Amino acid sequence: MREAFHDQLDSVFNDLAAIADQVQTSVARATEALLNADAEVAEAVISGDADIDAARERVEEHSFSLLSLQQPVARDLRTLVAGLRMVAELERMGDLSVHVAKIARLRVPDTAVPEDAEPTIRRMAMVAELMVGKVARIIAERDVAGAAELASADEEMDELRRNSFRELLGADWPHGVEPAVDLALLGRYYERIADHAVSVANRVVYVVTGEPVVSSDA
Amino acid sequence: MREAFHDQLDSVFNDLAAIADQVQTSVARATEALLNADAEVAEAVISGDADIDAARERVEEHSFSLLSLQQPVARDLRTLVAGLRMVAELERMGDLSVHVAKIARLRVPDTAVPEDAEPTIRRMAMVAELMVGKVARIIAERDVAGAAELASADEEMDELRRNSFRELLGADWPHGVEPAVDLALLGRYYERIADHAVSVANRVVYVVTGEPVVSSDA
Repeated sequence: MREAFHDQLDSVFNDLAAIADQVQTSVARATEALLNADAEVAEAVISGDADIDAARERVEEHSFSLLSLQQPVARDLRTLVAGLRMVAELERMGDLSVHVAKIARLRVPDTAVPEDAEPTIRRMAMVAELMVGKVARIIAERDVAGAAELASADEEMDELRRNSFRELLGADWPHGVEPAVDLALLGRYYERIADHAVSVANRVVYVVTGEPVVSSDA
Repeated sequence: MREAFHDQLDSVFNDLAAIADQVQTSVARATEALLNADAEVAEAVISGDADIDAARERVEEHSFSLLSLQQPVARDLRTLVAGLRMVAELERMGDLSVHVAKIARLRVPDTAVPEDAEPTIRRMAMVAELMVGKVARIIAERDVAGAAELASADEEMDELRRNSFRELLGADWPHGVEPAVDLALLGRYYERIADHAVSVANRVVYVVTGEPVVSSDA
């Protein structure tokens, strides 16, 4: 019985890792839509979010049935509840990639990102995508050491966001209000994806070690 | 035993309602700091967030001990898990009020909100604050009918956000990039507070009726 239960828990975590993979693809394609002003790719990201939502629902139903039927306690209980929180955050990361895609779509045939602002946004997008990819592996392999790496990636993200603000609030910003607003919001979305990635990774650490990781999420 | 358990569940929901009250105060004071360029009030909001975080931790610990010791099933289990999700969202709403306070603090002694943009932001802030206040009552009284009212408040919020974008992206916007970026982010924060309020209210409906409420949160 216990062994079957742990197989079920593993299955939940494999599903979570698969959702993280889906989110990574969604973030990558949203960025592609953004930088190439590609409406078709943007639409695919927006409509594809329903798959992530459906995957979340399946994980939730599975977790609830395990909670009800197996009545786990202690560590098993905390693992299942952590899984429920992780899936909510992963879905939210998918929503944030949809927000990026919607800004891309809004500006087609133009691109929302002026050429000179592109390096910073491209790097933010890359850092976010890499972080989501790491989260998928951290979940799949219960990789506590990998979670520590995410913290430094998140610091780079914060630094990039400060750079981006310096660029668009600088006296020599030539592009006016609309691109500045788009970039501020895009920066916010990528930063939130990174925050959630750190949070999900910290929950894996908690599941493995039993020790909560203190992080400031505000 | 069951009766004692339901008393405990009631106690969790009372704690959740109390946290919603704290969040309402935090949103109101963040708005006050914003519109009055009041650094002292902004600091109070920022440091006061630790109380909301601590209250969240207490609810989580209580919920976990109920899950472990009482092994609830079916509706009781769903209620407790819903409570865990609600407390996470309430804490997040507190974080968002901190973001508002930080923008206020950043611009002191100026105000981040130009005079002609103030009516829209003031109304957004008011709608957000009212929604959080309603959520506190909805939680405390398991008020399913009240949850429906929140949906229309959320529609007003969306409309206000569109208005705000029209203002700051209009050809006659005289204030330049920085206030536009501040307003876009402020709009995002108030809108997210409203989204979470709707989500928390929907979870109460789910707890009471057993029927999930479908809402698009992206």
